[in-house]
Amino acid sequence: MDCAVIFGIGLIGGSLALALREAGSVKRVIGFGRDAENLRIAREAGVIDEIGSDAAQVAQADVVVLAVPVGQMGGVMAAIAPHLAPHTVVTDVGSTKQDVIALARTHLKDRLARFVPAHPIAGAEKSGVRAARADLFRDRVVVITPLAETDPVARSQVAGLWTACGARIVELTPQEHDEVFAAVSHLPHVLAFALVDYIAAQKEAARLFGLAASGFRDVTRIAASSPEMWRDICLANREALLRHLTGYEAELEHLRALIAAGDGEGLAEVFTRARNTRRRFLGEG
Amino acid sequence: MDCAVIFGIGLIGGSLALALREAGSVKRVIGFGRDAENLRIAREAGVIDEIGSDAAQVAQADVVVLAVPVGQMGGVMAAIAPHLAPHTVVTDVGSTKQDVIALARTHLKDRLARFVPAHPIAGAEKSGVRAARADLFRDRVVVITPLAETDPVARSQVAGLWTACGARIVELTPQEHDEVFAAVSHLPHVLAFALVDYIAAQKEAARLFGLAASGFRDVTRIAASSPEMWRDICLANREALLRHLTGYEAELEHLRALIAAGDGEGLAEVFTRARNTRRRFLGEG
Repeated sequence: MDCAVIFGIGLIGGSLALALREAGSVKRVIGFGRDAENLRIAREAGVIDEIGSDAAQVAQADVVVLAVPVGQMGGVMAAIAPHLAPHTVVTDVGSTKQDVIALARTHLKDRLARFVPAHPIAGAEKSGVRAARADLFRDRVVVITPLAETDPVARSQVAGLWTACGARIVELTPQEHDEVFAAVSHLPHVLAFALVDYIAAQKEAARLFGLAASGFRDVTRIAASSPEMWRDICLANREALLRHLTGYEAELEHLRALIAAGDGEGLAEVFTRARNTRRRFLGEG
Repeated sequence: MDCAVIFGIGLIGGSLALALREAGSVKRVIGFGRDAENLRIAREAGVIDEIGSDAAQVAQADVVVLAVPVGQMGGVMAAIAPHLAPHTVVTDVGSTKQDVIALARTHLKDRLARFVPAHPIAGAEKSGVRAARADLFRDRVVVITPLAETDPVARSQVAGLWTACGARIVELTPQEHDEVFAAVSHLPHVLAFALVDYIAAQKEAARLFGLAASGFRDVTRIAASSPEMWRDICLANREALLRHLTGYEAELEHLRALIAAGDGEGLAEVFTRARNTRRRFLGEG
């Protein structure tokens, strides 16, 4: 491909720009964003070739990547829709898929066949172009959730870009995607934000954080993630997230009851099952 | 010191043995434990010099370290009490302090002046002597919670052993200790065990774990910790833990209400406060 236009040159958009250029998959990257200083850094660091200034520039693009928070996705789609060339593929990196697809149905109507919803599963507790790296997606999964309308050629083009970055493609329906990530991503983020906020509200919070071990650091690492991004995700995937919050709270109540009753056998049973499950699926690390 | 006797040659006991020998703080380590195979590995790997076989061997010890799960602490104290030499210092590495002190008051009665309760704050999601390393305590905190009865010389000796391992000493009352670690350690462990157990109970759990990103791995790492150890801790520090579980559940309910109400501003406020607090106290990593 000759030209990629990327909206949002943060960790994901910036890393994708670097990876695509390193792989030789695109010759030129035009980057758009709200933060002029961030874009300047991205251009000086060679992450992007050009700072975009007018949505009409997407007419030059072979592929347009929407790497902005989900809350800004609709506005960007509306801005670019009138300027897209017939062959241009549009894709996104949103952490929720059904809501982005709904926006695409509204704003990209007659372009829907060339819209390929995608979600790279790459840890993102760091943000901004300074955290971007060309190998961010190596050996990571990228979930693609095609629509009934999606042109198989467009799907293959987007899959090809991601595999060029070293990623492995998994295809899910948009519903499956949102259900899976409500459980293994959105719920854990809410739990981590809640834990930090709870500790921060304690008397002598400074001493508590000062004495926290590496385990606390691990548990709360994702609470360093972008508040704006996570606000948007929580609202976009609200129903599935609330369902999992309810389920998790029931699990926690079960553990609380075991602790309150002094039921050591019951606690050991849950802890052992949890440890063994985690080891089976995620190994030791 | 000439001889240290360590009960429990797992991650903590084994690492302490290695660190003390490397620092030249003790000449000889006798290791006791329930798992003969583990002790054999420890001796072959040079972690300990000798496998203990009879509690009367503590008569040779300058220091006795109790590094067994809190649930076994009382039994070990009762077994060693009749054999301790007058100068011998006894210390422990338990994750809870008030309950260990209560056991010491029962079993080490007239030896209480030379009992120094301690707790090294070193991540312990790995267990067993194979995970032991001489630098586990370097730049880590060791909390010492002396009793009114504790001989200042014994306190200094134990503090000296830990600083020789590279650790920094923080002194707290036993009550302060248990309150602090209920919040920043025991609560997070329960949350992580609950999260893994909750996901494991879902339909298609294998797919969920398979698609989980590094953030999920981080959040649940401490759920790989010893079930027996964490059962004992939860029961030993039950009251403080239940109080913090209640507080955390209230925080989670607040977040749930914001999500259910679609209150993006409220969510962003909590997430921003959490992120900034974590950054201030724990940095980016």
